[in-house]
Parts: sequence; C-alpha cells; structure tokens
Amino acid sequence: MIRRGLRVAARLGHHGALPGGPYILPTFSPASAFGSSMDSLESEFCQEKTDLKNYALPNASWCPDMLNLYHEFLEKTKADGWIRLPSFKSNRNHIQGLKLPLVLTASSDKSDCHIFTRCIKTEGQGYEYVIFFHPSKKKSVCLFQPGPYLEGPRGFAHGGSLAAMIDETFSKIAYLAGEGLFTLNLNTRFKNLIRMGSLAVLNVGVEKVEDQKLYISCIAQSTDQQTVYAKASGTFLQLQLEEDSSQYYTLCLQESLLPTALPTGTHPRAAGGVREVTGEVREKALSFA
Amino acid sequence: MIRRGLRVAARLGHHGALPGGPYILPTFSPASAFGSSMDSLESEFCQEKTDLKNYALPNASWCPDMLNLYHEFLEKTKADGWIRLPSFKSNRNHIQGLKLPLVLTASSDKSDCHIFTRCIKTEGQGYEYVIFFHPSKKKSVCLFQPGPYLEGPRGFAHGGSLAAMIDETFSKIAYLAGEGLFTLNLNTRFKNLIRMGSLAVLNVGVEKVEDQKLYISCIAQSTDQQTVYAKASGTFLQLQLEEDSSQYYTLCLQESLLPTALPTGTHPRAAGGVREVTGEVREKALSFA
Repeated sequence: MIRRGLRVAARLGHHGALPGGPYILPTFSPASAFGSSMDSLESEFCQEKTDLKNYALPNASWCPDMLNLYHEFLEKTKADGWIRLPSFKSNRNHIQGLKLPLVLTASSDKSDCHIFTRCIKTEGQGYEYVIFFHPSKKKSVCLFQPGPYLEGPRGFAHGGSLAAMIDETFSKIAYLAGEGLFTLNLNTRFKNLIRMGSLAVLNVGVEKVEDQKLYISCIAQSTDQQTVYAKASGTFLQLQLEEDSSQYYTLCLQESLLPTALPTGTHPRAAGGVREVTGEVREKALSFA
Repeated sequence: MIRRGLRVAARLGHHGALPGGPYILPTFSPASAFGSSMDSLESEFCQEKTDLKNYALPNASWCPDMLNLYHEFLEKTKADGWIRLPSFKSNRNHIQGLKLPLVLTASSDKSDCHIFTRCIKTEGQGYEYVIFFHPSKKKSVCLFQPGPYLEGPRGFAHGGSLAAMIDETFSKIAYLAGEGLFTLNLNTRFKNLIRMGSLAVLNVGVEKVEDQKLYISCIAQSTDQQTVYAKASGTFLQLQLEEDSSQYYTLCLQESLLPTALPTGTHPRAAGGVREVTGEVREKALSFA
C-alpha cells in the first residue's frame, strides 16, 4: 500500500511539465483554482532574475534565421500579446516555493542540476532555443537550433533531441496555459532531418481541454515552412490544487492511504478534480503494473 | 521538384536509427539484401576500436543496481547469445564507410560532433547507459542511469531525456535486428518519475515486421520491476539497399527526379522495396506539406 501511494504521488509529480511537484504548493496556488486570471502564473514564471543567466537570449552561435525570427517575435511582445519566456539553468529557478515532498526528495537534490535542455554549457554546441508564448491564444513558438552535440545521423540532429525539445515546449505551455502538470503521452511523427546548426520552428498550440486533460499539438518546420521536420501531440493532466494540498498528499504518503480515502479539500472544484484524476491515473497505472 | 526529391532523400536518411545515411552505402551492404545472415551487420557495428573510448563500460558513477545488472548481462554474453553493444562518441564511429550524399552533407560535418546521448562528457552527469542486444530474439535491454544534467522536475529525470534514450535504443535494435533505418513514429506514455542517479531498465523488443515496417515496443521499469516509468512504441521503416544505392539516390537529387522514375537496381527485392517505400513515405509527406 505504501508503494501504491508513492506511485500515485510520484506520478503526479511528473515531469518536465512541472518545475517542482504539482502536489506540493506551499507558497503558490495556480490562479484559476481560485477564480483569478492566469496573470500571476505567468508573472511568477517570467519574472526577471538578474542573478541568473537567461539562456533564451541571443548569442554568437545563433544563425541568421534564428536571430531574425527572434527579433520579429520580440517586436510582437510589445503589442501583440506575446511573452518571451526566460530560461534558467534549472526549472527550480523559475518558480520559487515549489518542491517535492520530503518523502520524495532525491538525494541528488543538492548536486549541480541542469534542466535537460540546458545541459550543454558551450554556446552553439547543444540546445539553442527560445520560447515565445501567447496566453490568450494558448499558443507558443519555439525557435530551436540544434548544435553538433545533438547529433544523430552524420550532420543532422538526433530524433530524440527534437522529441525532448518538443516535450519541453509542451510542458511549458501546458503549465502556463492550463495548469497541465503531468505528461500522460508524447507522440512524435518524424518527417525530415534537421540539419545541424539550422533553425527549426516549433508551432505549438493547445487543441482542447477536456476531462481535465490538455491536448497539445506541434508542427516543427523549416523557417520557410517548406519542410516539415515532425508533427507531435501530447496529453497533459490538468490539476487544480489547493494551497494546502501539500499536506493533503504528504498525509497520503505518511498514512499509506490513497488520496481518494482522505478528506476532500476546502475548494470544491479543486478537491473534486484532484480526486477524480488521481483515481483515473491510478487505475491506468495499476492496469500496467 | 528539386525540393521534393531532397525531401524524399532526407527523409530516408532519418535519424538516430542510422549511423550515417541509409541511402548511401558505398562500402557496406545490409546482409539480408543479399541473402546472408545478419552476422556481418552486428560484427561491423560491434567491432572493437582501441583508439576510441567505449562509453558503454562501467565507471565510478554507476550505481550498484546498474553494476550488478551489467555484470549479469555480461555473463549472458558468454553463453546465452547476448551481445554488449559498444558506444562511441559518434554514430559515424560505429560503421565506417557510411555517409550522406554530397548534396546533403552538412557544413558542420567537420566540427566536434557527439551522438546526442553521449553529449555530456563528465561521468555520471548526463547519460550513463549500456545496451545489450539479443539478435535471434530481436530483443535488447538498455540500462539507463540519468544524471543531474538530465533534470526535469527537481531531483528527477526530464521526460524528454527518457524519450531520447528510448529513441536511441529503438534505433539500434531497428538497425541491427531488421535494417530499420527511418523512424516514422515514437510514442511514449509516461507513468512514473525516474529518480536522478537511479537505474531504469528498458526492455525493448521487435513486435512484428510487416509491410517493410518494424514495430518496436519498450517498457522502462525499476530494477525490481515494481515501478513502470514509461511504455513506448516506435515504428521504423525497413529498407534493403544495394551496394550502389548511393549513386541511385545521388542521381535522383542531381536529376531532380523522384526515385520511382529512375531505373531499378540489380537486386529485385532491394530495388522493389526501396521504390515501394519511398513512394509511401513521399505520399505521406506530401499530404502534410
């Protein structure tokens, strides 16, 4: 039963979608759970941090196509409602106050951690990317330039590096556009190779939100839109948690109880949602275990 | 028409599945195209190269679970038909003589390239993995230990890093077990987080080969098989090329002709296969373009 409870909790913490763990929100509450707009979510995520390097800024390795599109979108941030997302070394830099529960805290937590898509330090060698996000349209655009450390076949990006870039872009829009916290599925259909050092433009959008799931799609293309590199879709679980949900889930783990066996929270929509979804996810997991 | 031809050729070259490009095989012929066994394919891929570092060997960062399972499988290589696949810095080190056609050779070709899953040099920081392969069973096992540079949520591996690891494992089995050269699709269903520095065991197998496609599946689990991290499936295109197929495809590109408009090769099975499959892939691509 303990393992079962842990499995549910760990699953809820999954994965790139959430900078931290969705079930532990000691100082932060997703806005819509309390009826407000998503502004606070974005402003929290996008706040300037002068002590941290923002990897989403141009550097000398960026190809002309990437620079041009970057400046084009930067203009759109002034009037068209687009937001440039900052990109720090780790997800934990983006939103302070989120953490996994003690029972799940990894021993490697104190080591020098990097978000996977910023794992290579030298400019131009690995992932070069910047994500622009449009809150009201629930769309984002990721400008992605793979470097020579992302190789698959000679001279071209590894398919896995593109899949990971798509996953990372999905996770950010899922979190910011609809509190999508847990990736259920990622499906990538590859069409063409991306030449090393060239630009791939990932157009990402939330297709629908249904039964507390966000359905997100992506088309990755060349700058001129003449070459499709990949098409992808992903499903994210939408969870609306309460401020004290940490105690709720920590209690589950400590008491070795499934969340459904615990008292509901104070916010009807949030509490009902969590119970319903964890039940669904648990059921799925048990059918595979 | 030129672009169309390029698109077909580039697609055939995709992606981690092929160390080099599948349509340019100047000194190497996939065995089954000529009726022999797959032995030469494996021996070519697995040959010892004393001048290159083999990253698939144990190092001080490997956790006890990984070391134990490594030695268990190493024992199986002595009698049970398992093969330990070497892992060099780049795919191009595995099989000499494969290259992309001139028209597709990337300008970054001379730079210091790394296969994506060996992009982080420091032991234990990034990808630690070794793949064992069983030719007659068409199965493989990948022991994967994610380091702190592969982080997603705090203390756990990024979902994209697992997807990329699955993609890389798929591509090797696809190539060695059935000349699967082009990844058509990769679908990953995430179940649980992988704790940083712990072991995930990827059990991979070819489910079926049908209509020149390999269907491959994966279950990624904890060592004790009590926690499922992910389930995945992939589809790879099986191509049986002739020794001189490089000229065949280079000619396509130079003449701006689609492969089907060119004379067939000398080996009926191989030539027919290539034509049939490129037609199918082209059709799919055009429907998206």
